[in-house]
Amino acid sequence: MSSLESLRSLIDDALEIYSADKLAKPDYALYEAGACIEYKCLHYPVSKTYPPDPVDQSLLASAISWFVPRDRPNPPETILEPSVLTGTCWGFNGSEGQVAVRLSEPIVVTEVSIDHINSKIAHHITSSLKEFRVWGLKNITEVGVDLGTFTYQTDINRHVQTFQINNPTNQVFSHVVLQALSNYGYPYTCIYRFRVHGDRVTPENTLSISNNIPIISEKQLQEETL
Amino acid sequence: MSSLESLRSLIDDALEIYSADKLAKPDYALYEAGACIEYKCLHYPVSKTYPPDPVDQSLLASAISWFVPRDRPNPPETILEPSVLTGTCWGFNGSEGQVAVRLSEPIVVTEVSIDHINSKIAHHITSSLKEFRVWGLKNITEVGVDLGTFTYQTDINRHVQTFQINNPTNQVFSHVVLQALSNYGYPYTCIYRFRVHGDRVTPENTLSISNNIPIISEKQLQEETL
Amino acid sequence: MSSLESLRSLIDDALEIYSADKLAKPDYALYEAGACIEYKCLHYPVSKTYPPDPVDQSLLASAISWFVPRDRPNPPETILEPSVLTGTCWGFNGSEGQVAVRLSEPIVVTEVSIDHINSKIAHHITSSLKEFRVWGLKNITEVGVDLGTFTYQTDINRHVQTFQINNPTNQVFSHVVLQALSNYGYPYTCIYRFRVHGDRVTPENTLSISNNIPIISEKQLQEETL
Ligand SMILES: [K+]
Ligand SMILES: [K+]
Ligand SMILES: [K+]
Repeated sequence: MSSLESLRSLIDDALEIYSADKLAKPDYALYEAGACIEYKCLHYPVSKTYPPDPVDQSLLASAISWFVPRDRPNPPETILEPSVLTGTCWGFNGSEGQVAVRLSEPIVVTEVSIDHINSKIAHHITSSLKEFRVWGLKNITEVGVDLGTFTYQTDINRHVQTFQINNPTNQVFSHVVLQALSNYGYPYTCIYRFRVHGDRVTPENTLSISNNIPIISEKQLQEETL
Repeated sequence: MSSLESLRSLIDDALEIYSADKLAKPDYALYEAGACIEYKCLHYPVSKTYPPDPVDQSLLASAISWFVPRDRPNPPETILEPSVLTGTCWGFNGSEGQVAVRLSEPIVVTEVSIDHINSKIAHHITSSLKEFRVWGLKNITEVGVDLGTFTYQTDINRHVQTFQINNPTNQVFSHVVLQALSNYGYPYTCIYRFRVHGDRVTPENTLSISNNIPIISEKQLQEETL
Repeated sequence: MSSLESLRSLIDDALEIYSADKLAKPDYALYEAGACIEYKCLHYPVSKTYPPDPVDQSLLASAISWFVPRDRPNPPETILEPSVLTGTCWGFNGSEGQVAVRLSEPIVVTEVSIDHINSKIAHHITSSLKEFRVWGLKNITEVGVDLGTFTYQTDINRHVQTFQINNPTNQVFSHVVLQALSNYGYPYTCIYRFRVHGDRVTPENTLSISNNIPIISEKQLQEETL
């Protein structure tokens, strides 16, 4: 292979990763894959969306509001969607807030990622998330396990940032909570995307996983899906 | 030009191709360009969408279903749309199925492409198309011409794969049929995108094309548009 | 850092720019950032959309037309949206037309950009904009300042083209008009995207800006927002 061919292949490999959601890692918090915002976590109620929705959320109101899309604030589900175009983010008032995510399937969580719009095109970069904590939960009633505190940086030229979480016991979690601790100074905070990466629970890796793995009973599952 | 400038230019050229639908080739099966799914092909009825749509397809039902988008299976038209985000695919039960496409204009077909989500981020890569056959048709009543059998590979790191078809007589086709022969083992098959490439019929190239070119009569056209 | 690492970093930098709207420059004509089409400019009425909309624009008609999306022509607002997929453009009859944009905030305009679909995948590349003039306005009643005449080229392999405008006095404009003067020969003209770049008005740069800066009165602002 010539040097030029090697170079083109290297570029094509980079583009292949780019087109694979920019990370080439499965995202278990992806809405389209079955994840959703969990509104029933006992200890982690979802922060109120900012600005408040001017339109009443009845079915008729929703139908009419399709024709005035810019007046509607984006719901929390926005952070589970891949788009990072300007404005496709979820906002909450102030710099502290939280949101719980039911993963598309219970996994051994190993990393999380935050996407924000690149600071070079952001109109209000100071609304970006700064410090945040991540919690892993086995059900919607427990406080869960603190998986670490991390900082999203707006001054490095990489808009997708991945953080290795601290989960030495390889516990399996069905839910993950993103808890914002600070932002870069704006009156409200905007989150474009939150991703959760990890290892699926298969018969093979279950054997090597510690005793901390929850045995999810039928009853628990029913409770969770209530 | 310096070596660094050459390199940047090479990268920009690759990005220009990437932004030109990743292939920089016109797609005559693109919905937005005027192509559509052909539901009236005598020999190639479109396979039933899987899972079956839970919602009755009346106008009212369609209106209401805008508010429960995840419960709706994607229609066959999805494969004529450029998005390859997770879930923007059309599914059918099992590993054998087919779909006919009316091209945006009759062309001399030279290649087809299949897009699937990259295996590194796919949640069920075994639902990918494996072997498939392509047919070229001049109208919706004929069996048409077998343009070859091909294999989409999930173990190479390229999610868009282009296949040169066998059309030595340079026939002009108005419709192309994609016939799935196998998948990678999943109970159903998902197709993200199907593209058809080729040469337009112009006064110039018509002269050099073989006698096999159909003379499409007004009557045939009317039959086709019925 | 090894040579391979340097190369990968160079590619990643290019991808970071690519994901930052391909230019890594804020766009003050972006709809999602608050810009909009200005229909009330005294001297620059917005050209009629081509083809004419077959559907009456009443609320009921709009609701129904969600189910026949292909039959609807794209409105002028389309040029303020980032998508450059085939067909996400605004058309007007002939080769001369114009559209006024209210920027997301008044700025010192320094550059404008035109996005068109790459000529290699365009089905009708001759519908592309060729020569155009740009005007800067401080309000919707004035003729404004001629910011230069430019040519979008379809024969260079770069689908986003940026043009430096001529604004030596650093005037601040709230509106920018795009005036099409010619196209590449098609019966109608299609514009995919129009962007406006520049410098924000801050207390700091206001001091160094010439005396030509308009003092926008409350009354003017009210008139503008009527
Ligand atoms: K998003
Ligand atoms: K698709
Ligand atoms: K557009």
